[in-house]
Amino acid sequence: MLPETVSSYLYRHRDEHLAALKELLSIPSLAADQPGAAEACRQAAAWLAERLTSLGAEATVVSAPPRPVVTASFGAQGDRPTLLIYGHYDVQPPEPLEQWTSPPFEPVVRDGCLYARGASDDKGQLFAHLMAVEAWQRAGGGLPVNVKFLIEGQEEIGSPGLEDFLAARRKELAADAIVISDSEFFAEGLPSITYGLRGVLHVELTVRGPAQDLHSGIHGGAPANPINVLAAMIAEMHDARGAVAIPGFYDDVLELSPQERREWQALPFDEAAYGASLGLDALGGGEAGYPVLERRWSRPSLDCNGIVGGYGGRGTKTIIPASATVKISMRLVCNQDPDRIITGFAAFVEGHRRPGTAVEFSVQSKSRPVLLNRSSPAMTAAVAAMEEAFGRRAAMIRCGASVPVTEVFQRLGGLDAVLMGFGLPDDNLHAPNERFRLDQLWRGAVASAAMMRYLSAGRR
Amino acid sequence: MLPETVSSYLYRHRDEHLAALKELLSIPSLAADQPGAAEACRQAAAWLAERLTSLGAEATVVSAPPRPVVTASFGAQGDRPTLLIYGHYDVQPPEPLEQWTSPPFEPVVRDGCLYARGASDDKGQLFAHLMAVEAWQRAGGGLPVNVKFLIEGQEEIGSPGLEDFLAARRKELAADAIVISDSEFFAEGLPSITYGLRGVLHVELTVRGPAQDLHSGIHGGAPANPINVLAAMIAEMHDARGAVAIPGFYDDVLELSPQERREWQALPFDEAAYGASLGLDALGGGEAGYPVLERRWSRPSLDCNGIVGGYGGRGTKTIIPASATVKISMRLVCNQDPDRIITGFAAFVEGHRRPGTAVEFSVQSKSRPVLLNRSSPAMTAAVAAMEEAFGRRAAMIRCGASVPVTEVFQRLGGLDAVLMGFGLPDDNLHAPNERFRLDQLWRGAVASAAMMRYLSAGRR
Repeated sequence: MLPETVSSYLYRHRDEHLAALKELLSIPSLAADQPGAAEACRQAAAWLAERLTSLGAEATVVSAPPRPVVTASFGAQGDRPTLLIYGHYDVQPPEPLEQWTSPPFEPVVRDGCLYARGASDDKGQLFAHLMAVEAWQRAGGGLPVNVKFLIEGQEEIGSPGLEDFLAARRKELAADAIVISDSEFFAEGLPSITYGLRGVLHVELTVRGPAQDLHSGIHGGAPANPINVLAAMIAEMHDARGAVAIPGFYDDVLELSPQERREWQALPFDEAAYGASLGLDALGGGEAGYPVLERRWSRPSLDCNGIVGGYGGRGTKTIIPASATVKISMRLVCNQDPDRIITGFAAFVEGHRRPGTAVEFSVQSKSRPVLLNRSSPAMTAAVAAMEEAFGRRAAMIRCGASVPVTEVFQRLGGLDAVLMGFGLPDDNLHAPNERFRLDQLWRGAVASAAMMRYLSAGRR
Repeated sequence: MLPETVSSYLYRHRDEHLAALKELLSIPSLAADQPGAAEACRQAAAWLAERLTSLGAEATVVSAPPRPVVTASFGAQGDRPTLLIYGHYDVQPPEPLEQWTSPPFEPVVRDGCLYARGASDDKGQLFAHLMAVEAWQRAGGGLPVNVKFLIEGQEEIGSPGLEDFLAARRKELAADAIVISDSEFFAEGLPSITYGLRGVLHVELTVRGPAQDLHSGIHGGAPANPINVLAAMIAEMHDARGAVAIPGFYDDVLELSPQERREWQALPFDEAAYGASLGLDALGGGEAGYPVLERRWSRPSLDCNGIVGGYGGRGTKTIIPASATVKISMRLVCNQDPDRIITGFAAFVEGHRRPGTAVEFSVQSKSRPVLLNRSSPAMTAAVAAMEEAFGRRAAMIRCGASVPVTEVFQRLGGLDAVLMGFGLPDDNLHAPNERFRLDQLWRGAVASAAMMRYLSAGRR
């Protein structure tokens, strides 16, 4: 159990912590390349380094273009386990702005929820750990384990360069375990620990046609139209049963174990209710024949994230456009290798070339899928801590999204990783009106503090 | 033959006519809703009305928001044919300005060409008719036919309201024939008369999915993705041979006559050179098995003019978008009826509905295809006049674009129409450095004057 001094400290400082988190959320620290974003990221990094320093850490803002990284260390006593806490201060672009009830970078509490871009993903979840550290330092007699922080600013653009960064700082960031709070409960009231993540491969594909936009009346019927050609390519990326039709796509896919299938079937999940929560009367995506959770967690997928070509304004413009571009994300599962998938995609593109057009594609980012050790000391400590903070045994789940750093730490540092998320499924991640339930913030801080305690006890 | 007094008048007044046309071209009379454009259009309309009055017409500037119409009439002797001359004083926006060698509204002559926005489309071609009227009035003993003018200011935005305008003024604008000079020679040195135009149907199609953008990692594989679904619909709008797969699309298509096919084959047209002029090494659009000119002139087509959905900015955004929209133009040929095509398109959309998505479409505009009577007195007069002015028999061609007013006049007024264009294919219409060859202007005026003469003679 957590010492009463630690938990009561967290209870008494709720308003102060909320005010501090609002400061951090006011900084529009986009990883995306938009005007002012780089400066905002510098501000957010400086804010975090200053706060960590005030809690007793040696903290540094490290230049790691395009966005700085914050590292911090609270002591290094050799007889204690070392816990590395990972988070990211960068946020998704807030558009479409007109759908926000309150401005994305003016945090406000409504009905027990804090609304702001980054409230849940990931500034709020990260901040719960800072609260836990503060409580141990100021009211618990100091941290029970060695704690390090690694806070990056490029997670939302796929963490480019992070692997090199970690490889170069292996010693400085050495730890026994890493905890990442950038995920969510399976359902409200059901704490969850995520042991598997999909990887992701982002590609951008452009079809070029005539040298410039042409009059669609004078020329229509002669030149290939880049939008029509691109649409045909996109259509052929899936077969009739919804499977991805890239050559070799499924070659290395690891089948789900019978135990996991049983666990997932026992989860409180209703496909119709899930669809309704997305505003849908039916789910029309993914592979036929697989339950929805498997389609989201253990099967790969391919989605277009954005498409643009020709005239997008009001009214009409009678053109055959010079080009059209689509952004695509492929979600990968163990043991798919992003580089083998890229090879398959290149073959697909080559095979779908059409006369009168040129096709080019580029890889924007890639990260590998990951499955974590479910019986490591860190995992065991996390399960106990979540039960202590939230009063219920955590469900062991997977997530369809990527947290690329998880796989990198596992591969480079041999660290046991734990994905202990405090978000809820209706936090509107990456969408307008992102929010974080304040109760999840407070209990998340308790869980973080308790995990440090259990990790410390487990080692002795 | 034109009386020598008329042709020599045109020759002797070249400098004066050029100066007058420059005045008209200096007025930035945009139909598009831009600052100052409405006032400039009033100026242009007033300038034209004043000039027509000075030539002996009863001319009126008629309010027809957003842009005034100029009407004029030169007598109405019952025993003579009446020729209605149509033109438009509005011009396309001049952007991108930095690509103009000289400013778009400061007309200047270089290498025998007059450079200005509107030089060819349509102020210059229209002005050739004013020159012809002037020559008859001042040097030819008066016009040999009754002449009326209808000059509008909204052609470049699709002539909204023009049909209602004409329907309300049927009597005032009654005529035997209408001549429209808003087209071009098939090639330099080859005078051309256009006897067929495609119609156009603009639709906008939106596929809606989840209530808002979703995280493509967390949800990818479950909901249908609106971009993917829209892409599949677009792909299915054409079959494997490039034919449009909308139900009933070809039901009413009038086949090309063997005579027309022979005529077109005799035209100086090189498919490879045409492709190269568009920056293409191959033409990949339209129906397999049809020559390029047929695909552009006598076969219907379907092109996407613009597509937008999800994230279109730089970098990546891992979303399944809430919706995706495409703008489509269908080019129609005789005897396709836009309303029947709309019905077929609705059936297509209905048949391609996918679970978990909603589809909506709207019709943005429509105009009917038109084939003109190639043996009408007006057409016969135009052919003789073009040969007299340019020294070569005119090619009878079609054009894939629409000039909606042509069909409206034919349908509402029962007028025989002639599309007698003086432009050249490299006039840079709608593009930077629009120009009009001065020789085409002078000879165009001769052709107009001669056409009046032949029309007059034909009636007797």
